[in-house]
Amino acid sequence: MVIIIEKDTKEKVIESIIKKLDQEGFDIHRSTGIDHTILGVIGNTNKLDIRDIKLMEGVGEAYRITAPYKLVSREFKSQNTTFKVRDVEIGGDETVIMAGPCSIESKEQIMTIAESVAKAGAKILRGGAFKPRSSPYSFQGLGEKGLEYMREAADKYNLAMITEVMDKDQIELVESYTDIIQVGARNMQNFSFIRALGKSSKPVFLKRGIAATIEEWLMSAEYILSGGNKNVIFCERGIRTFETYTRNTMDISAIPIIQKLSHLPIFADPSHGTGLRNKVIPMARAAVAAGANGLMIEVHNDPDKALSDGAQSLYLEQFADLMKQIRIIADVIGRKVA
Amino acid sequence: MVIIIEKDTKEKVIESIIKKLDQEGFDIHRSTGIDHTILGVIGNTNKLDIRDIKLMEGVGEAYRITAPYKLVSREFKSQNTTFKVRDVEIGGDETVIMAGPCSIESKEQIMTIAESVAKAGAKILRGGAFKPRSSPYSFQGLGEKGLEYMREAADKYNLAMITEVMDKDQIELVESYTDIIQVGARNMQNFSFIRALGKSSKPVFLKRGIAATIEEWLMSAEYILSGGNKNVIFCERGIRTFETYTRNTMDISAIPIIQKLSHLPIFADPSHGTGLRNKVIPMARAAVAAGANGLMIEVHNDPDKALSDGAQSLYLEQFADLMKQIRIIADVIGRKVA
Amino acid sequence: MVIIIEKDTKEKVIESIIKKLDQEGFDIHRSTGIDHTILGVIGNTNKLDIRDIKLMEGVGEAYRITAPYKLVSREFKSQNTTFKVRDVEIGGDETVIMAGPCSIESKEQIMTIAESVAKAGAKILRGGAFKPRSSPYSFQGLGEKGLEYMREAADKYNLAMITEVMDKDQIELVESYTDIIQVGARNMQNFSFIRALGKSSKPVFLKRGIAATIEEWLMSAEYILSGGNKNVIFCERGIRTFETYTRNTMDISAIPIIQKLSHLPIFADPSHGTGLRNKVIPMARAAVAAGANGLMIEVHNDPDKALSDGAQSLYLEQFADLMKQIRIIADVIGRKVA
Amino acid sequence: MVIIIEKDTKEKVIESIIKKLDQEGFDIHRSTGIDHTILGVIGNTNKLDIRDIKLMEGVGEAYRITAPYKLVSREFKSQNTTFKVRDVEIGGDETVIMAGPCSIESKEQIMTIAESVAKAGAKILRGGAFKPRSSPYSFQGLGEKGLEYMREAADKYNLAMITEVMDKDQIELVESYTDIIQVGARNMQNFSFIRALGKSSKPVFLKRGIAATIEEWLMSAEYILSGGNKNVIFCERGIRTFETYTRNTMDISAIPIIQKLSHLPIFADPSHGTGLRNKVIPMARAAVAAGANGLMIEVHNDPDKALSDGAQSLYLEQFADLMKQIRIIADVIGRKVA
Repeated sequence: MVIIIEKDTKEKVIESIIKKLDQEGFDIHRSTGIDHTILGVIGNTNKLDIRDIKLMEGVGEAYRITAPYKLVSREFKSQNTTFKVRDVEIGGDETVIMAGPCSIESKEQIMTIAESVAKAGAKILRGGAFKPRSSPYSFQGLGEKGLEYMREAADKYNLAMITEVMDKDQIELVESYTDIIQVGARNMQNFSFIRALGKSSKPVFLKRGIAATIEEWLMSAEYILSGGNKNVIFCERGIRTFETYTRNTMDISAIPIIQKLSHLPIFADPSHGTGLRNKVIPMARAAVAAGANGLMIEVHNDPDKALSDGAQSLYLEQFADLMKQIRIIADVIGRKVA
Repeated sequence: MVIIIEKDTKEKVIESIIKKLDQEGFDIHRSTGIDHTILGVIGNTNKLDIRDIKLMEGVGEAYRITAPYKLVSREFKSQNTTFKVRDVEIGGDETVIMAGPCSIESKEQIMTIAESVAKAGAKILRGGAFKPRSSPYSFQGLGEKGLEYMREAADKYNLAMITEVMDKDQIELVESYTDIIQVGARNMQNFSFIRALGKSSKPVFLKRGIAATIEEWLMSAEYILSGGNKNVIFCERGIRTFETYTRNTMDISAIPIIQKLSHLPIFADPSHGTGLRNKVIPMARAAVAAGANGLMIEVHNDPDKALSDGAQSLYLEQFADLMKQIRIIADVIGRKVA
Repeated sequence: MVIIIEKDTKEKVIESIIKKLDQEGFDIHRSTGIDHTILGVIGNTNKLDIRDIKLMEGVGEAYRITAPYKLVSREFKSQNTTFKVRDVEIGGDETVIMAGPCSIESKEQIMTIAESVAKAGAKILRGGAFKPRSSPYSFQGLGEKGLEYMREAADKYNLAMITEVMDKDQIELVESYTDIIQVGARNMQNFSFIRALGKSSKPVFLKRGIAATIEEWLMSAEYILSGGNKNVIFCERGIRTFETYTRNTMDISAIPIIQKLSHLPIFADPSHGTGLRNKVIPMARAAVAAGANGLMIEVHNDPDKALSDGAQSLYLEQFADLMKQIRIIADVIGRKVA
Repeated sequence: MVIIIEKDTKEKVIESIIKKLDQEGFDIHRSTGIDHTILGVIGNTNKLDIRDIKLMEGVGEAYRITAPYKLVSREFKSQNTTFKVRDVEIGGDETVIMAGPCSIESKEQIMTIAESVAKAGAKILRGGAFKPRSSPYSFQGLGEKGLEYMREAADKYNLAMITEVMDKDQIELVESYTDIIQVGARNMQNFSFIRALGKSSKPVFLKRGIAATIEEWLMSAEYILSGGNKNVIFCERGIRTFETYTRNTMDISAIPIIQKLSHLPIFADPSHGTGLRNKVIPMARAAVAAGANGLMIEVHNDPDKALSDGAQSLYLEQFADLMKQIRIIADVIGRKVA
């Protein structure tokens, strides 16, 4: 931590700051300038609340010089994390596409969609069995029945499977079906839940909270890694801004930023990022062009009759056309799409 | 729902929209203007996804005309909800003050603070036993031991008690100690959790999510009321904006807005709202002046040594002085402070 | 405008609303439902302040059904606006690249950069002679001398020229040098200035204000078109959000949205959108992939010594490499890059 | 400036950073810790672009340790700035109330309002003669005629006068009528305009831009002070956030923050801050409770017929009632209201 002493602070006050920090076990390096004295505080400053320091007499400003996260950082591990989910490599040269419906609605529906997206080049089947809905009166998902249908569909078409877990209590059940556990945006800072995921053997797909800073997002991943689960995938899905034309504002720049700060892969979800079908396609292309490690896309065989989020689901043919476009775009930056 | 048909849309297209909605069981009222045709859709439109309507051919815009919440609305219940917690009335003419430390740290600490805040006029003791922390490496609270200490302190000084529950699993345990259950900002949209609170016999203190719109906040309360628990208290605690000088931007205007839209009481938490002690006092006064039903304030006997959030905790004497000021301010608008 | 009458409003009150609007010259269509009565208000409702309507007794909600802008809308003109700037077509099939330094610093500098960007495929030279700086103590630009150098460079390398005008007083001077007038983000709602640009014969490049909604942006263009100048180019350059890692959050989704709502072309400026060189390249690719009509990119022959914004300027070779990438990406969606 | 060197950076790289800064004339203080080396950069670092520093090889982070503003800071001038406008003292113990209509509509209107607000205790008459409107089709104000009416009304009822100037060209004209020049939110960063105001002999009332950080706001005032005009009044009027229920979110906490960082007075404008009449009153009380140096409030004798912003204007009696309330609230914190 670096502490900037206020101009004209008495020497006695500076010494008392140094003494206090020294007593707490920190090493202090002092630089005395003409206008400003600077203190470098060396030691595990994560245990200090920076606001406490700022409120001390004589302190003008204080900054952390080490990021509050460690295990997720590229400083800690410089090589990209890659891992296999069934036979799909995540984090490598391939831009991996996850596709499927918002909610699993019936066996027929998930089978039809799985067949079609597999044929177009998707490697992982997505779909919700337990749905977080902002209204208590909306469709809440098929539950375990949905997981069964989805596993069957994934197996039949040689796809890996990802589905959302809403709650600590559901982890065990869902783990017995899925290959990847999805954490929704609203749960990104549900700390007892993500702590529990640190003990899971399945990779975690961690959506960005709609108001989460990149640092907070990294900290949530840190919770999971610190519990022992090293396989986390970030997913940008749009942040909340003043603009209301789209449901959220997709922060495409988070893709290169996460790739700089962390060794973990980052995907993009243009379906939730925009909330509108005709915006999903350009935003999917944009995410690939920006270098995303993969995409998650909602696709439905009959979006007009979908029980949830039909408005942001692509038709099967739209998805197949999109795959053709992103194959070329990925190639421009030395990446592959199946 | 009101649907605005796009200019120059063919009659055939308009008819097909009407037919589709009619088949789904809605009544349609049509007004044909020179430039625009308007369709009024009557029925339970909450089951429609408005984005699906907007994507239909010929539809220019669509608006809901009924709020998505019901039980929490003033339209549903025009009189203010009031209820007793021990002998403290919430939602009535009194501006009720909750005060106490961020975290319970020891029996001595909570006893000292309880005595002091009770003497100054607080009616409810606050304090955390289980702490949601953005870093996995921070102090996480004393757990059940903390609850015991706090109950003892509350009883001794004739205070009611409020503490945070982080998780569905903790509800039963915490309920056996506390009078009011606090839901943190990060859990406001943890739906399986708030659904479970609908079955609790204890009032729920529902903090606003840092990026939650007023409508989403009302919807989360709707989850609780729809489960049978009628006693919800809203708490404004600051929203996330572009301004970084304060931790959050406290949205004081949410106080009169919630009071207009809902019959439920609304408190303000200036400690988390600002994150800085010397801003807590003016913001506490402001919230009372705006008509809040109560305040939640962090107070500590030794903030400089607090294990969490010391920087935003008031000293005991500061709290006592603040109580004197807000007593006069509350009186200006016909309210009372003990 | 559509007015939703509050539930249980007395007939007398509804009639007085209708009477008032009728007296102001509007036609009213009334639909009486079971719970809600809806009034359709036909006429030039742009002269009504919707908040006045909402405050009337008996009114629950009110919505505009016509956009407040007209000339800029695709409803008004369905074909894309295209126009020539020297021999460069804007708004057509070509993704047009504008490149150059943040500030013109010397004749040598602008000559070197112009030569290099022209060779790489840029069609329009950008550069600032008058600089809006948030600090009164920063470099403010070379003024007219800079315009002279820039015109000479543009002419020598067969480029069109764009530069910023900060002020109504400068329009005449700058018009005598430039081909396109750039309006900075901070001036997007400087109404007396943009009104004056409606009388200019030069196309206007209208950057989005950092907190401007898409509707406000369209309204600012409406000011220019309503003054007689039909050639406006929108430019997305990032909006202000809670995320502070990047200077601004570039709203890539604004590209397809503007193209849907308006017939005018939209460019993207990834340099200001991100503020950091190593993020400019992926964001430039993303904007092209999303379908932008063009890009504006800061390029400098020696960014480390640039007098302003060096940190977001590409090196000459980086720019040339980027051009190769976007040529392929544009082709994917049926567009061309020179 | 403080520079944090990245972990494991080679000594040669650190030395080249030091050498570069030394050549630019800065003094460097170096502290070498176990994990991190810290460089303190002493000198006028305002001329450095911090992003350039951050992009240098070996640099992990960089922070400014001096604020970019000077003349406006409390560090530069510790005593509150106070000045007289006619016989009204601004910045002293009195909470000064400015009141009047959004737009001057007629002589009768401004006379009626002036009489009434003066009687209730307002000291300064507000009103717009030139209106910035987001639509080119809205009422744009009476112009100079309005200024004449307003001056006459102010003089008759012994009020000082404040009105908005939209443009550099209007300064001279408006100065000949008004006592205080108001700068609208959209012009806060119109640098050529605010630079010109530095030469004015009239105090400047500087509204906060809807997306302006507190630092940017202080910088805009710095422009004015650096030009020689020492009398600036800040005015908080709401910032743009994701919440759309109110037009803007009024940032009440900006009041104590500005008072800490600067010696200049700060007012609040709850009319624009909320945009809705029934929210103006609680927010006006809140601003006074938070310690504002004054308020600006829109009042109209017939808000339902106002040509602009009627929805946020108080009725004359509402204003008189509000004055009674804030008189008591101001007294609580040792301030006075006339």
